[in-house]
Amino acid sequence: MRYLDVQNVKDLALGAAVLGTGGGGDPYIGMLMAVHAIETHGPVPLLSLEEVDDDLLVAPSAMMGAPTVMVEKLPRGSEAIHAFQALSAFLGRPIGATMSIEAGGLNSTIPLTVAAELGIPMVDCDGMGRAFPEIPMVTHTLYGISATPFAMADERGNSVILETIDNHWTERFARSVTVDMGATALIACYSTTGERLKEAVIPGTITLAETIGRTIREAQASHADVLAAVLEVTGGFEVFRGKVADVQRRTVAGFARGEARFEGIEAHQGETLSLHFQNENLVAMQGDQVLVSVPDLITVLDLETGQPITTEGLRYGFRVAVLGIPCSPKWRTPEGLKLVGPRYFGYDVGYVPVEERFG
Amino acid sequence: MRYLDVQNVKDLALGAAVLGTGGGGDPYIGMLMAVHAIETHGPVPLLSLEEVDDDLLVAPSAMMGAPTVMVEKLPRGSEAIHAFQALSAFLGRPIGATMSIEAGGLNSTIPLTVAAELGIPMVDCDGMGRAFPEIPMVTHTLYGISATPFAMADERGNSVILETIDNHWTERFARSVTVDMGATALIACYSTTGERLKEAVIPGTITLAETIGRTIREAQASHADVLAAVLEVTGGFEVFRGKVADVQRRTVAGFARGEARFEGIEAHQGETLSLHFQNENLVAMQGDQVLVSVPDLITVLDLETGQPITTEGLRYGFRVAVLGIPCSPKWRTPEGLKLVGPRYFGYDVGYVPVEERFG
Repeated sequence: MRYLDVQNVKDLALGAAVLGTGGGGDPYIGMLMAVHAIETHGPVPLLSLEEVDDDLLVAPSAMMGAPTVMVEKLPRGSEAIHAFQALSAFLGRPIGATMSIEAGGLNSTIPLTVAAELGIPMVDCDGMGRAFPEIPMVTHTLYGISATPFAMADERGNSVILETIDNHWTERFARSVTVDMGATALIACYSTTGERLKEAVIPGTITLAETIGRTIREAQASHADVLAAVLEVTGGFEVFRGKVADVQRRTVAGFARGEARFEGIEAHQGETLSLHFQNENLVAMQGDQVLVSVPDLITVLDLETGQPITTEGLRYGFRVAVLGIPCSPKWRTPEGLKLVGPRYFGYDVGYVPVEERFG
Repeated sequence: MRYLDVQNVKDLALGAAVLGTGGGGDPYIGMLMAVHAIETHGPVPLLSLEEVDDDLLVAPSAMMGAPTVMVEKLPRGSEAIHAFQALSAFLGRPIGATMSIEAGGLNSTIPLTVAAELGIPMVDCDGMGRAFPEIPMVTHTLYGISATPFAMADERGNSVILETIDNHWTERFARSVTVDMGATALIACYSTTGERLKEAVIPGTITLAETIGRTIREAQASHADVLAAVLEVTGGFEVFRGKVADVQRRTVAGFARGEARFEGIEAHQGETLSLHFQNENLVAMQGDQVLVSVPDLITVLDLETGQPITTEGLRYGFRVAVLGIPCSPKWRTPEGLKLVGPRYFGYDVGYVPVEERFG
């Protein structure tokens, strides 16, 4: 076990935004919330997955909804605690630790604020190794762990508990309630024991995100090549370099959906890349040709600053590198691809691992 | 305390449809469910409001959603039990009795099926003295009783618990979840003690509905004037007599909304009446003139059979009488009219008690 301090969570929020593939929430807001929580309550204990007792009850804490709205409607923190405690009350027993449901600027740090305030540890893992837009899209689902009981809370004091027959019904009800809650909600769900957690999740995601964030920070400070450093630490590939030429986004049914178009620069002069997203970046295409697709990660880095850019942060004229990063092997199974592969999202293409095209 | 037998519940389902003012569900389906429950489990004890212990926990059991859909998607009964038990589990204590949330062919008998199966009594009261379309529209709301915890269940096995800051937020979340559940859901809510129940609800509604039903049955059997008998037992007025000329209805956001037009016959020859409904009949108008409006009851009786006709049962050519029946005095207070008066439903007219126009 180690403790996460203020510098650790600043690095974490930044690095998680790289793994967030355009979604997972704004890293700046996530950083502010986590720093405030640690300054108020002290450093947060981080358990490695091996250190978790088999009997310990663990539940992720997270935000769901449209990140476009989240930017304007900040969580106060109390709604995350409210959802977490509503889940615990419904289960009739204390939840011993929390974790990230996904990597992302906000969803990596919200559980940290819950851990700090409730005085419980956070586990060094997540359910995606990246971010995905829908509730069932966690490795828990592949291992038969139910999303429910699923607790939701809003900033007004409303809460909801779902008990559903499968994780797809959870998504359906939770999405409607999220829209009614104002397009974002704080949630607690996928509670399970340490024993089942160890096989079902992706280990080390918090440490990986923190390492990525520290790498960016140190490269920026030493005026080193941030992009090269990020590629090295993530095992990713630069698939395009260009300027943001057009961004279309709309908030539909509690999601931020849209498409960005990049005009190539340098080696990519004269080429065009289109990037489709639903909260997260899903598919990067040149004409009809898919360059990278889910479940591999597609991350946009600002070439000036080396900072990751979320889908809601994309602005005309930004000069960026588009990165493809291999996903967890858990997603490359037939069951994994059925849940989060390109066909699930409506793209009629087979999945080709990013390293086969660019490695 | 008395026991409701098969004949009692047949009368109850029929009479409740008169008080249901076009909504509250199909009396035939409600009757079938209740008869089946009593034949399986035996007669159901009915407590008068005075007989309820002050400490007894009482919660209504009901269906919510669009009656137009309910006709095609019958509740199996188990989902009402599921919602009721989910509420009890959430409260962490047994619920000692159930009751009708509203008068209506189905919502007067669903709690009876729950009482029969769980072996608990039903209380002779309801929360409206009629039917209304939205969750907060019960006299409980006027007395500060919360709709939540609010349990919902569907026929697949999904359930949801809402905890909201007021009854209007309950309506909002519950309506969305109902739509996701397929436009109907079974619910249990507004749990309270016998002590608070006594001041907050409308006493005797089950006995009144049963009396109305028996009156119709006996008048039909003796070839007496069914309409005159119904007017006498309800204290109502015949406000129009005509033929159904046109019915427009649509299922929107979990409600059956629409308008029926009647062409006058006999003394009303040459006149036209329009009837606006949202699950229940809301306003009866001649041209711009409101004849009867919520919260008074507007009920359509088939002139051939004396049977009440629900909004989804209105068919071209039916010869009907349109009745106006005074509502409970609890609805005629400023707070009551704010909650269920014509202005709440978007009709910019003041409320005039039906007996002032027709008495």
